[in-house]
Amino acid sequence: MDEEKRDESLVFGRNAVLALFRAGTTVEKLYVQDGLKDGPIRTILREAKKTDTVVRFLPKERLTEMAKDRAHQGVIALAGAGTYVEMDELFRIAEERGEPPFFFLLDEVQDPHNLGAILRTAHVAGAHGIILPKVRSALLTPAAVKASAGAASFVPVVKTGNLVQTIEELKKRGLWFVCGDMSGTSMYELDLTGPMVLVLGNEGNGVSRLVKEHCDYAAAIPMHGELGSLNVSVACGVLGYEIVRQRRLKNEWK
Amino acid sequence: MDEEKRDESLVFGRNAVLALFRAGTTVEKLYVQDGLKDGPIRTILREAKKTDTVVRFLPKERLTEMAKDRAHQGVIALAGAGTYVEMDELFRIAEERGEPPFFFLLDEVQDPHNLGAILRTAHVAGAHGIILPKVRSALLTPAAVKASAGAASFVPVVKTGNLVQTIEELKKRGLWFVCGDMSGTSMYELDLTGPMVLVLGNEGNGVSRLVKEHCDYAAAIPMHGELGSLNVSVACGVLGYEIVRQRRLKNEWK
Repeated sequence: MDEEKRDESLVFGRNAVLALFRAGTTVEKLYVQDGLKDGPIRTILREAKKTDTVVRFLPKERLTEMAKDRAHQGVIALAGAGTYVEMDELFRIAEERGEPPFFFLLDEVQDPHNLGAILRTAHVAGAHGIILPKVRSALLTPAAVKASAGAASFVPVVKTGNLVQTIEELKKRGLWFVCGDMSGTSMYELDLTGPMVLVLGNEGNGVSRLVKEHCDYAAAIPMHGELGSLNVSVACGVLGYEIVRQRRLKNEWK
Repeated sequence: MDEEKRDESLVFGRNAVLALFRAGTTVEKLYVQDGLKDGPIRTILREAKKTDTVVRFLPKERLTEMAKDRAHQGVIALAGAGTYVEMDELFRIAEERGEPPFFFLLDEVQDPHNLGAILRTAHVAGAHGIILPKVRSALLTPAAVKASAGAASFVPVVKTGNLVQTIEELKKRGLWFVCGDMSGTSMYELDLTGPMVLVLGNEGNGVSRLVKEHCDYAAAIPMHGELGSLNVSVACGVLGYEIVRQRRLKNEWK
């Protein structure tokens, strides 16, 4: 399911969307009808470019479907409700706390309620921040912020264009990557202390092959029986707290 | 928020509701307009009594609000999508596996998506079953079963009229009760092995005072900072897996 279908944060029509940009509201995504090139649309696209907003061009029918019975005039925006930070901010927080960096990286988690629950977990588990891809991911929309029960105000989030490139850059800065993976090594048998990024995957497919290949470890949560899996926000909680447990033993969690 | 507002599993009107009973479908709850006493309503109430269905009498306006633009004719049913078992079945499964009993008890968890996620956790964490109160709780409705991603077919669920009475009865059968509680003892400092029931509370208020008083232990998940809390299904995963970790060390988890 596309995240836009799940989210209640869509804004429809040219004036309304332009007003969002002019008000300085984050627009997480802009949907524009294929082939439209008139003046108002060009103005909106210019604003999108200025703010580095992701734009998707779709056939008129798709927009009409998204808008249900509301008039969209060829343009729909997914409004944001949070702000993003640069990667350095996450390192700064870790340093300020005197802890080795501890980040979550989400590889295409799509449900804003899961993102909200993961923000809550990051907050109480003491993660220094969350890294998300710009596309095919739940973002800091009103639905996600609401589900975070306040945690979105405390947990810094970085939005990145290319996850693999981000992983490579962070490895150069000394971080290790562990992804949640049912076919990995039991989380109890791995040393999960030190500077660590916990990688969680999409609700349906888990962590993508490419991202998994760039991780240092694959950690499995022991499962009773062969069938079944955990909800991604629950898996994040279980793996995140195994990291917390190990960090506490080494006094890396203050 | 009442669970009926969140759930998509409502059936409206006299014929439709009567058809549910006649087809043998579980009716989780029946809402009847205050003061109605005609023949068809009496027939429906008789069926509800036969099947021990929870009935709530509400003013017409409440039913109209629940029905939105659909005709309800004074009666709305919350259809079920699962079946319940007797408590002995949970003990039978524990015995069959050669493990000390390990159950979850949910004290008014209301969101069907949380119940679905908890069913998934129970399944993979090897809990022998889940205990729910009949009222003020999410139940095995289509929304919860869907969110369980198949786990509802594997995890036996017991529905009980009185949680405190149930706790007392289970204590006599040798079970210990630990509730998730932010002001409790760190879960890492408690011995959570042996026959154990993990108690989780409502999304907004946590475990109720009365239920908490009947628990043997209160277990806290260590939190970074003073503010914040975990989503209830995530808390269930983190506490449930701390129990799993301790059981594995004692070879109580096969």
